[in-house]
Amino acid sequence: MDTPAFEGWTCPVPLQHYPTIVLGHGAGGKMMNDLIRHLFAEEFHSPLLGQLADAAAIQVGGQRLAITTDSFVVSPLFFPGGDIGELAVNGTINDLAAAGARPIYLTSGFILEEGLPMETLARITRSMARACDRAGVQIAAGDTKVVNKGHGDGIYINTSGIGVIPEKVHIAPDKARPGDLVIISGSMGDHGIAVMSVREGLKFRTEIKSDTAPLARMVQAMIDAGAEIHCLRDATRGGLAAVLNELSMASQVGIEFEETSVPVRPDVFAACEMLGLDPLFIANEGKMVAIVAPEHAETALAAMRSDPFGREAVAIGRVVTDHPGMVVATTSIGGTRVVDLPAGELLPRIC
Amino acid sequence: MDTPAFEGWTCPVPLQHYPTIVLGHGAGGKMMNDLIRHLFAEEFHSPLLGQLADAAAIQVGGQRLAITTDSFVVSPLFFPGGDIGELAVNGTINDLAAAGARPIYLTSGFILEEGLPMETLARITRSMARACDRAGVQIAAGDTKVVNKGHGDGIYINTSGIGVIPEKVHIAPDKARPGDLVIISGSMGDHGIAVMSVREGLKFRTEIKSDTAPLARMVQAMIDAGAEIHCLRDATRGGLAAVLNELSMASQVGIEFEETSVPVRPDVFAACEMLGLDPLFIANEGKMVAIVAPEHAETALAAMRSDPFGREAVAIGRVVTDHPGMVVATTSIGGTRVVDLPAGELLPRIC
Repeated sequence: MDTPAFEGWTCPVPLQHYPTIVLGHGAGGKMMNDLIRHLFAEEFHSPLLGQLADAAAIQVGGQRLAITTDSFVVSPLFFPGGDIGELAVNGTINDLAAAGARPIYLTSGFILEEGLPMETLARITRSMARACDRAGVQIAAGDTKVVNKGHGDGIYINTSGIGVIPEKVHIAPDKARPGDLVIISGSMGDHGIAVMSVREGLKFRTEIKSDTAPLARMVQAMIDAGAEIHCLRDATRGGLAAVLNELSMASQVGIEFEETSVPVRPDVFAACEMLGLDPLFIANEGKMVAIVAPEHAETALAAMRSDPFGREAVAIGRVVTDHPGMVVATTSIGGTRVVDLPAGELLPRIC
Repeated sequence: MDTPAFEGWTCPVPLQHYPTIVLGHGAGGKMMNDLIRHLFAEEFHSPLLGQLADAAAIQVGGQRLAITTDSFVVSPLFFPGGDIGELAVNGTINDLAAAGARPIYLTSGFILEEGLPMETLARITRSMARACDRAGVQIAAGDTKVVNKGHGDGIYINTSGIGVIPEKVHIAPDKARPGDLVIISGSMGDHGIAVMSVREGLKFRTEIKSDTAPLARMVQAMIDAGAEIHCLRDATRGGLAAVLNELSMASQVGIEFEETSVPVRPDVFAACEMLGLDPLFIANEGKMVAIVAPEHAETALAAMRSDPFGREAVAIGRVVTDHPGMVVATTSIGGTRVVDLPAGELLPRIC
């Protein structure tokens, strides 16, 4: 057999602590960031990857485009409020939206496991189609692979997407400035707890539903209203905590927010209490975090609230010059605590 | 649990013959085409998908772009002549090239199985990086998911890609015209047999290597030389037989070729004889099939032969008005035989 050239790869700290891949490497926290920075961004010589943005802004023949890719491995495939198909479409739309882009085309790559019921595939396909119709995007290209029974998990979906960035828009993770306001588009933790509850067979007083939703129209409303947006980020894996940490590190600023101003549904809060989880670290699939110039905060909030998926938008904090790269929360009893980047895995396979 | 709306999906013929997904649905033959046409293209209302092109041609702000997606699930991950990483980069480059596009950016989505050695991931990443450098493309965006041990197969890679289509180029599967010549860029069957040999532990006199290679420069050379190309297709899953059948159906023309003029390496031929396989149906990962206007055939051939991956380019046949949608081979003993679209799976998981 041909031995591919491999000249003694030495693993930079801190990857060497992990001789093999563990679930935490896919969790959106510190371990995943290390993998991206120390392996992928370096080997690919790709400054775009190193930016850790939700979507990359590229220039093609005078046109500014956003491109992004996302694979979905959520288990189970169907959960309260959505399914893997809807998630796959909305997730990529939201990554494009986080670059300020208007999504236009998606691609769809299926990895199907031998034995998957045709009806399950049809349900998921139909769900993807509905999500595309709702968001006004089209699937332009697709691919289907089938793996042997026992080598997959029913269905994995990759969606990649392309969107057009309006001329005046320059949103990037490193653009937060001291004085900017931190806004979130609604309640935190719904998606992760919804998937967790059905997977673990947990029963709560009310059914907790995923918040999966397309956010591109909300973002376009903010842009159209003239709000000067510095950063946008879809608060998925790692939750609000991961997003704020990544933005504070990328922009080399501090972020402070009031824990009590972060909306968390009572049932989600109760579930988190019971499970010993912090809602700030739980994934959302329909929530945008925005950092905006202070004089534009009211405009941004009004635009977000005009959208059905941003009605509960609220300012929760502020960008500061102190403690660059660090996120500090003011707690309900008036104290402060550092909110760190989650290390590894809290809830595996929630998207 | 929330029951997603699903109003009694009825499966159109011939999908209903398969209540579950089988390996053949990913094999690039009739079963996969049925799945695309009867499920994906219909549900997604996507005429672009129904065209079954290697890449979709889209218009974005006055610029013609090609976009494509491909997931790679090859087993084993390393094989003579290449690995899953190189394959993933070259495969998507070649799909873009088959639209006449100059590839510019790729995205990379990893689905990693818990327990994958970090060194294996590093080798594959480095191999992807080398393949990108060689072809002059950049990885602009990435995604990493980790699935539990036993729910993957080490690593699956999705690559999606975007390329720019030159203004004068209008290549599509339905553009073959009677009188056009059919050209292939080199020998058939190398990749499939190379993967098969290592997977099945087969020993041949010489080592059979995969032909994985990036073909975009060869295609650009053809375009730059002024060759009027009607159709281009990367002869992967389903091999030459699948490509010719798809093009003859899309263009509603007949295709005739001489079996003896199709180059097949002696060791690949011997392996096929031994295994009872037809090299025309075996996947290639570095071979382009071109259908060109007859007066441009010499120009196209010369341009292909000027590229290191097209030195053995040869005209093998012709587009005819007879038997539209049907491919007919003239055999070595002077007879003719119909070369049908492969039904299902010959060699699973070769890409």
